Amino acid sequence: MEFGQEGSQKVDNSAPRWPFIVPRFKNTIKRIIQFAKTVKKIGDDDPRRIAHSFKVGFALTLVSIFYYVTPLFASFGVSTVWAVLTVVVVMEYTVGGTLSKGLNRAFATLLAGALGVAAHQIAVLCGDKGEPVLLGLFVFVLAAAATFSRFIPEVKAKYDYGVMIFILTFSLVAVSSYRVDELIELAHQRLSTIAFGVATCLGTSIFVFPVWAGEDLHKLVADNLEKLACFLEGLAAEYFAEKGATEDMDGKSFLKVYMSVLNSKPTEDFLANLARWEPRHGRFLFRHPWSQYQTIGVLSRQCAYLMDALATFITTLPKHKPNMDQDRHLMIQTACGEMSSESAEALKELSLAIRTMTTPALANHHASNAVAAMENLKDALSKEINILPNDLHMATTASFLDLLVIRIQGITSSVEELARLAHFRRLEPVRDAKIKPIADGEDVIIDLEK
Amino acid sequence: MEFGQEGSQKVDNSAPRWPFIVPRFKNTIKRIIQFAKTVKKIGDDDPRRIAHSFKVGFALTLVSIFYYVTPLFASFGVSTVWAVLTVVVVMEYTVGGTLSKGLNRAFATLLAGALGVAAHQIAVLCGDKGEPVLLGLFVFVLAAAATFSRFIPEVKAKYDYGVMIFILTFSLVAVSSYRVDELIELAHQRLSTIAFGVATCLGTSIFVFPVWAGEDLHKLVADNLEKLACFLEGLAAEYFAEKGATEDMDGKSFLKVYMSVLNSKPTEDFLANLARWEPRHGRFLFRHPWSQYQTIGVLSRQCAYLMDALATFITTLPKHKPNMDQDRHLMIQTACGEMSSESAEALKELSLAIRTMTTPALANHHASNAVAAMENLKDALSKEINILPNDLHMATTASFLDLLVIRIQGITSSVEELARLAHFRRLEPVRDAKIKPIADGEDVIIDLEK
Repeated sequence: MEFGQEGSQKVDNSAPRWPFIVPRFKNTIKRIIQFAKTVKKIGDDDPRRIAHSFKVGFALTLVSIFYYVTPLFASFGVSTVWAVLTVVVVMEYTVGGTLSKGLNRAFATLLAGALGVAAHQIAVLCGDKGEPVLLGLFVFVLAAAATFSRFIPEVKAKYDYGVMIFILTFSLVAVSSYRVDELIELAHQRLSTIAFGVATCLGTSIFVFPVWAGEDLHKLVADNLEKLACFLEGLAAEYFAEKGATEDMDGKSFLKVYMSVLNSKPTEDFLANLARWEPRHGRFLFRHPWSQYQTIGVLSRQCAYLMDALATFITTLPKHKPNMDQDRHLMIQTACGEMSSESAEALKELSLAIRTMTTPALANHHASNAVAAMENLKDALSKEINILPNDLHMATTASFLDLLVIRIQGITSSVEELARLAHFRRLEPVRDAKIKPIADGEDVIIDLEK
Repeated sequence: MEFGQEGSQKVDNSAPRWPFIVPRFKNTIKRIIQFAKTVKKIGDDDPRRIAHSFKVGFALTLVSIFYYVTPLFASFGVSTVWAVLTVVVVMEYTVGGTLSKGLNRAFATLLAGALGVAAHQIAVLCGDKGEPVLLGLFVFVLAAAATFSRFIPEVKAKYDYGVMIFILTFSLVAVSSYRVDELIELAHQRLSTIAFGVATCLGTSIFVFPVWAGEDLHKLVADNLEKLACFLEGLAAEYFAEKGATEDMDGKSFLKVYMSVLNSKPTEDFLANLARWEPRHGRFLFRHPWSQYQTIGVLSRQCAYLMDALATFITTLPKHKPNMDQDRHLMIQTACGEMSSESAEALKELSLAIRTMTTPALANHHASNAVAAMENLKDALSKEINILPNDLHMATTASFLDLLVIRIQGITSSVEELARLAHFRRLEPVRDAKIKPIADGEDVIIDLEK
């Protein structure tokens, strides 16, 4: 802001001379500052983005050295531009992205190049007049068939880029074969430079500050479970607490925390698709069960849908004041609070277990507690002879929690399945625990560290 | 299947000789048939996909004629390959996609080409040794900065492809400027062939069986409203009907019909982004309010989340048998049925209004009926002295419907806003209606056609 003020002071002196320019100039400076802030935020949010930008610059400069060094240029000629082109289009943010594009490009070029040369050999047999016609026909048929294959979901997910490069290379080879005489040499040069470009991209991607799609997926799934936990924690602390009975819930931040989970499907699917291309890295072995993350994702979203419905219910429909029978109201409220906080604990345990890659130890215990609280409440309610209309609101909330508790049981099993499939570490059971004597009136602290 | 049987009969004769090959051969034939079925289904689902495939083949064959015709080739030389390359990467399924990629490519090439030539002129001033160093530095800085800009959400959504082409072209021009002497001529040739490629793509996209992203978005939003309506209709007909009181709801198809709406956000955003690039077509004028479709989409998904919660509730938690007080149970059930069917009518009206581009006439009426039924039920419930626990299930369902009715009011307003912004036709009020005398016992049919 200081910069902006300084600028406007200077301009104020010249105001009489250019009255129209002054406000525009101020506006421009404001916009530039705003833009700089946005850029800074994007970099601060994830510094790996800055590293990625430098990596692209580095890889490009590396391949362009090819061009500047005379002996290297002599052996590859104008084909060197294909290395530059390859780096620009193949270099992706994640290792999986670069690998998927690079391998797609390399294999598609190889296959299409070979087919293109074969098409040329066949076309030559048809004489001078037949050659362009036959080449045109080949291009038409192969391009149409390959384009159609991009509509097949499996091809679209894994090989979309490869099919595009296939059409591209086949057309280029088939078309230019009509004019270029040293076709084989050209194909060889082009393939070598593309391989060199792909190798540069892969090297930079894997060895310079690598960004692993698998790791991002792993974190995303753990973060999402944490967000669901925050919602339930907030509910227990603010809505089912005593003060919450009358407080207005509109605008509470915990009622929005699950929102990003609702639309997490495309990101999860995208990352899972790329993660499958990545080699073993860190604690992620080859054939890590990536699809299990997608299963947990589906269950997390179903939870988030329920939370959205519950949040709408809490904020849209007015809460009745508790009626005369305070005891029953308190009983339902306490049970709901317990269901929420135990479910929140279970989800936090699961999120931590994924983050630390250890078998979840206490999650099942918390989930069972939530189920027990739910069963107790149901028992108590079925013994009541009647429920006053005023209690309906709280009873409906209890039904929502009931569904959430069941869903969270499902999430617990699927995270346990992930732990089994991915061989998460099993924490050693605690053998001996020290009990520290403390002052009266405080809780006893049991030190579980060995 | 007949083909498969015939094949296996033939093979059976030779079974003794190649025992291992027979089952493999059968398997292969099975797979081929399976694959052929998948391909046929993709084509049947949307025949425009077949047309698109032929369009790509056609456009490619068209630009390759450039190469075969000698006078054309002489004027553009090897640069002709850029036309082929442009067609392959620019040609998209929708007109908006092709336009967005084509314009991005054309302008990015122009800008980057000019900057590349400028960079070359500056670098030349630094002498033979300084030139490659300075060129390398330029490429590094611009590539890093441009790559970083792709993380800015606005750039990512609209100009991602343009930025990539900018990096590509700048690097190619800057790098090859070190070796190529006739830089300006090369740039001119390349730009013309790219322009020719883009023009071919646009012509084929717009004039041969065009697929408009805007039209697809329009249909998608209307379809989604229809799906929500089907859910509520099914609820009224199967769950709140008399027979539904005891029937098991698991596996009912109407409980799954809203599912595709849950994850419709990426498709809607993608289509809306492309629709903004499209020129006036059919009944869609320039500056059609595409963002309003996204608003309706958000509200539709919120409805779908509620429906998912309600469907989970209905299928997961057991429905109690109605207690002694059949009257009250029936009262709640009838009210719920009315709320569902009136809401379904409102949604169907809105969907039809979007499809026919007419101002929704009766939707508001149906939505108000649903609200009235809801208010009546609330009144009746608050007058009850007590509610038996057995009625809790039905009362909770009523709360869900309450939330849905409120959401559908929101959808009604936003579709009305769309009708206003997009100048939907207003249907003339019916002046005179003919009443046709019919046999006793049937409903009277009022012919509303003038």
